[in-house]
Amino acid sequence: MKLVALYKQPPDPQAFDQEYFGTHLPLMNKVPGLTQTIITRFSRTLMGEGLYLMTEMYFTDPAAMKVAMKSPEMATAGENLNSFAAGLVTLMFGEEEKEPQASR
Amino acid sequence: MKLVALYKQPPDPQAFDQEYFGTHLPLMNKVPGLTQTIITRFSRTLMGEGLYLMTEMYFTDPAAMKVAMKSPEMATAGENLNSFAAGLVTLMFGEEEKEPQASR
Repeated sequence: MKLVALYKQPPDPQAFDQEYFGTHLPLMNKVPGLTQTIITRFSRTLMGEGLYLMTEMYFTDPAAMKVAMKSPEMATAGENLNSFAAGLVTLMFGEEEKEPQASR
Repeated sequence: MKLVALYKQPPDPQAFDQEYFGTHLPLMNKVPGLTQTIITRFSRTLMGEGLYLMTEMYFTDPAAMKVAMKSPEMATAGENLNSFAAGLVTLMFGEEEKEPQASR
């Protein structure tokens, strides 16, 4: 179970990165039950409307994520998110399935 | 290095899933150099415009991805994609960085 944040291209990427990596990520890292965070920087758009950044935040299970979502640490991180990424961010719950690849 | 496809909510999810899992994914699995595919189903949107599905397709390195992008297998998969997901899909290149989590 994961929480996925997708960020549109910010008007000022340098200011965004400073807020995101300097303040937001350290606040998110205090959220209880977070087991892994994977950040994706998008480098090129081939089709559709390009995005800037994605964060995938993993929790052990739905129960752990529920606890995390209600924690004061998440409330603080959420307030901070609104202060610099309102209108840029899409936040969703997601569930993964891996496609077995044929050996090559 | 990965190729990321994001899909908006399709008008007919059942028809979309049939095309996607029944035809498109098997075509993508023939693309040379693909090492792993992770599919994410989005279950709930907390902020912003919700999406339906995400596919993360991993390649060993940028060179392998370049070869894959120019392969006839990718051309076939791309044509198929246009046949059922035009207007729904955003396709981007992305690079990952993992955030080290404090032990809990």
